[in-house]
Amino acid sequence: MEIDHSGSLFAIMKRIERSAWFQGFIISIIVVAALTVGAKTYALPYGIERGINYLDNFITVFFLVELSLRFLACDDKRHFFKDPWNLFDTVIVVGSLIPISETEMILVARLLRVFRVLRLVSIIPELRFLINALLKAIPQMGYIALLMFIIFYIFAAVGSIFFHHVNEELWGDIAISMLTLFRIATFEDWTDVMYETMDVYPFSWIFYLIFIFLTAFVFLNMMVGVVLDVMTRETAQEEHENQESNHQALVTQISELQAQVARLVDKIDAQQDKKD
Amino acid sequence: MEIDHSGSLFAIMKRIERSAWFQGFIISIIVVAALTVGAKTYALPYGIERGINYLDNFITVFFLVELSLRFLACDDKRHFFKDPWNLFDTVIVVGSLIPISETEMILVARLLRVFRVLRLVSIIPELRFLINALLKAIPQMGYIALLMFIIFYIFAAVGSIFFHHVNEELWGDIAISMLTLFRIATFEDWTDVMYETMDVYPFSWIFYLIFIFLTAFVFLNMMVGVVLDVMTRETAQEEHENQESNHQALVTQISELQAQVARLVDKIDAQQDKKD
Amino acid sequence: MEIDHSGSLFAIMKRIERSAWFQGFIISIIVVAALTVGAKTYALPYGIERGINYLDNFITVFFLVELSLRFLACDDKRHFFKDPWNLFDTVIVVGSLIPISETEMILVARLLRVFRVLRLVSIIPELRFLINALLKAIPQMGYIALLMFIIFYIFAAVGSIFFHHVNEELWGDIAISMLTLFRIATFEDWTDVMYETMDVYPFSWIFYLIFIFLTAFVFLNMMVGVVLDVMTRETAQEEHENQESNHQALVTQISELQAQVARLVDKIDAQQDKKD
Amino acid sequence: MEIDHSGSLFAIMKRIERSAWFQGFIISIIVVAALTVGAKTYALPYGIERGINYLDNFITVFFLVELSLRFLACDDKRHFFKDPWNLFDTVIVVGSLIPISETEMILVARLLRVFRVLRLVSIIPELRFLINALLKAIPQMGYIALLMFIIFYIFAAVGSIFFHHVNEELWGDIAISMLTLFRIATFEDWTDVMYETMDVYPFSWIFYLIFIFLTAFVFLNMMVGVVLDVMTRETAQEEHENQESNHQALVTQISELQAQVARLVDKIDAQQDKKD
Repeated sequence: MEIDHSGSLFAIMKRIERSAWFQGFIISIIVVAALTVGAKTYALPYGIERGINYLDNFITVFFLVELSLRFLACDDKRHFFKDPWNLFDTVIVVGSLIPISETEMILVARLLRVFRVLRLVSIIPELRFLINALLKAIPQMGYIALLMFIIFYIFAAVGSIFFHHVNEELWGDIAISMLTLFRIATFEDWTDVMYETMDVYPFSWIFYLIFIFLTAFVFLNMMVGVVLDVMTRETAQEEHENQESNHQALVTQISELQAQVARLVDKIDAQQDKKD
Repeated sequence: MEIDHSGSLFAIMKRIERSAWFQGFIISIIVVAALTVGAKTYALPYGIERGINYLDNFITVFFLVELSLRFLACDDKRHFFKDPWNLFDTVIVVGSLIPISETEMILVARLLRVFRVLRLVSIIPELRFLINALLKAIPQMGYIALLMFIIFYIFAAVGSIFFHHVNEELWGDIAISMLTLFRIATFEDWTDVMYETMDVYPFSWIFYLIFIFLTAFVFLNMMVGVVLDVMTRETAQEEHENQESNHQALVTQISELQAQVARLVDKIDAQQDKKD
Repeated sequence: MEIDHSGSLFAIMKRIERSAWFQGFIISIIVVAALTVGAKTYALPYGIERGINYLDNFITVFFLVELSLRFLACDDKRHFFKDPWNLFDTVIVVGSLIPISETEMILVARLLRVFRVLRLVSIIPELRFLINALLKAIPQMGYIALLMFIIFYIFAAVGSIFFHHVNEELWGDIAISMLTLFRIATFEDWTDVMYETMDVYPFSWIFYLIFIFLTAFVFLNMMVGVVLDVMTRETAQEEHENQESNHQALVTQISELQAQVARLVDKIDAQQDKKD
Repeated sequence: MEIDHSGSLFAIMKRIERSAWFQGFIISIIVVAALTVGAKTYALPYGIERGINYLDNFITVFFLVELSLRFLACDDKRHFFKDPWNLFDTVIVVGSLIPISETEMILVARLLRVFRVLRLVSIIPELRFLINALLKAIPQMGYIALLMFIIFYIFAAVGSIFFHHVNEELWGDIAISMLTLFRIATFEDWTDVMYETMDVYPFSWIFYLIFIFLTAFVFLNMMVGVVLDVMTRETAQEEHENQESNHQALVTQISELQAQVARLVDKIDAQQDKKD
């Protein structure tokens, strides 16, 4: 019958989709896709390059088929795109389908195929788990990042006001000044920038020292904060649960003892009543 | 009546000052003030620049009005300036009022208006909280900072004595030597400085290595100290309080049990007395 | 008798191999071997160099004898090579035996003798312990390292596609691009690389900033993860064991108390039975 | 009487030595000494320089008098030099007494006077405490430092063997190679060193990458180790003591309860005996 046949096909697709060898096969295809991306950055003889292009098109089709299979194997079609990883895969697969053949646009087409390497992240459960853990760490950094941005913005404005005529390329406007400050924060040839402005403003080293101390201090505290937060969440919780279970065991045991003593009191009372 | 009327005006001002939309409105004005600060660093056509100047003056007046409103809405006028954040706002607002129209002084006027961006910190409670937390971390760094300064001072004196004729610009006097040492501590082209003095004193690398190891070692220990201090204060305290409450619960429960047994002893004593 | 004689020789060898002075003697020979390795990097007069070569050959023979002695002193010959440290020593000793006298191959021969310094690690128990501890920390970094590699690979591919005509030496192919990205991750003259590409693509700073933030963020989280993992394993375990032993002591004590009360109840029951 | 007089003088000296104002006075003299050290690095008019020299000699005499006073005020003369801080002060004070008037030796004389700034560390108790804490952290780093040295030594030997003809100044012998490797470990223009050797040995980037990963990995683990060690010692101990005292309180309380129940049993036994 039609329905039964469809049901069995559905069951087969599901079994295929969940089998370990199918997962392994997809991972190896993604690795091949990653290698073609890498290979294309080398100057290759025409024959090999054409072969790689054929392989590339095959991978594009394969990914489309695999995604369709996964979609069809999904019990509730409406929930398929609610899983962000499915959405992520769909965007990457559809992105690499866009047919761009213009000479200029060839870069964009190649760029979109590079992102297929990211499918490694969505297919390996441990990496997916890792990314989820990293994403969780972002919100707690929010206000620190805002504070850091304010510090950069103010120093960039001050730097731009005073130093823009010293070196237009480093302090020309507030955007370029923020990039220069980021460079200083990474200690990258920051003394060259400082010595240049010190020729005009001999005390401008104060500006750089305050900036470096402020960013280092805020960054250090941010790091401590993140370490603490993760630690409190994971280590302490486990410890805490263990302590709580120990505590509950003691409370229960003492309660039993109290009940025992209470029964003893009742017994003596009964003894007394009998005597009276 | 006069007093009632004043009282109701006072209440209205208070309600306005505390409303969420008023806070949001002030934040957006500060963001606009920040954007004008940034915009001024670009070369703009005359019309837009004049517009920005008008906007700038409007913001100055707005901040003055807002601060006055807050001051008037304050229950106890004498306590207003005891809150460091109010003082901070007042200094920034009054600072940007100072009328400086000299050509040279225009930089200072612009500088004072840059600091208005800092009002973002005083108006967003989370940032205010963050700054308070950062300020608390400073005292514990006090003696480490003093030790670091002594290390820098001694190495700067030694460097200045031996190397001042090698490179007057890097080792000319103790102040410039300390700046050079700070550069070395950030690993910024430190080998250039070293190779220069090694031409004259072939063993001067010992000076640099000892300095780098000392500062790195002290800095590392400072970091560990700060991490530990914050951790002990926050994590352990919470943990500790939980343990204490658990412990107290057990002590109370056992005390009840002791009282129960004591009553039992009394009962048996009474039984005995009766019998005797 | 043959067997007894062999047995006593075996016992003597074992005693020698385990004696503190023999260990000290081997350590000093390894230090001498390390010094000859160092001395050979200097231009030395012919006489001294010949002396060092004789010393070198003597050390080679000595190490071979020492290893044979250790092998003979081993109770179970089949287990000797199951200890990775013995295997490590054998590879190093046998490696320095390979007779290479070609002019070109002299470098390889010298290289193999350099590795004899590594025997310091296998002979000092504390270093062996340290290496074991470090090796244990590697697996937990596995997936983070894979994620880092994927980030590097994607950025290298993108960088190679867009920038390979800007600077062939830095972005020529995906391998050289990854090396350039590693350089950027260490903040080594990264602005020079950036300013070069910004001349062609003015917005290429976005590429560098995203890359730096991503790698710094993932690296930071990796560090936190490693710290946490080691901490949870060592500190918490000790703490946990202590708490458990405390908890057990309380449970035992209260159980005793319960038994005491139970005996009391029995006694009163007996009293009652007697009376009835 | 002689003894009494001496005793009272001794008591006075002791009181002076321990008074807060005397400590404050010495600290201010040390600060003046530090300032003269700094001032001498500037080109000063003859008059001021002569004044500073007189001040310098006065400080030398003052320090000698102060040290003698402290020595005389010490109860047990033999224990005076057992305190490392007293020895430290004596070496510094005696060192600055050595009369060196040769033109060449003037540098050494100035150097010895620079170290007088270090007396700040020995006179401020908090700094003395800090230094003691830092010194305690050194032994636990011992074997890690040895391992690090072995890594540097082996890579320096390998680098010197292969690269000494590429750049004699960077890889000439094992000592200069170790300095170059230290430079690479601080990421200081390390790519310049790498690109130079990559012209001759295209795969020499493997050497640099392995070296950087190894040192970074060992350093990271060292940091984690130090953090853990300090943490286990300080935080956990406090926590532990608190838990132990809580545990003991519970044990004592339950023991009291057991005694109470035991007395109850005795009472019932006595009751029974009486009846029988």
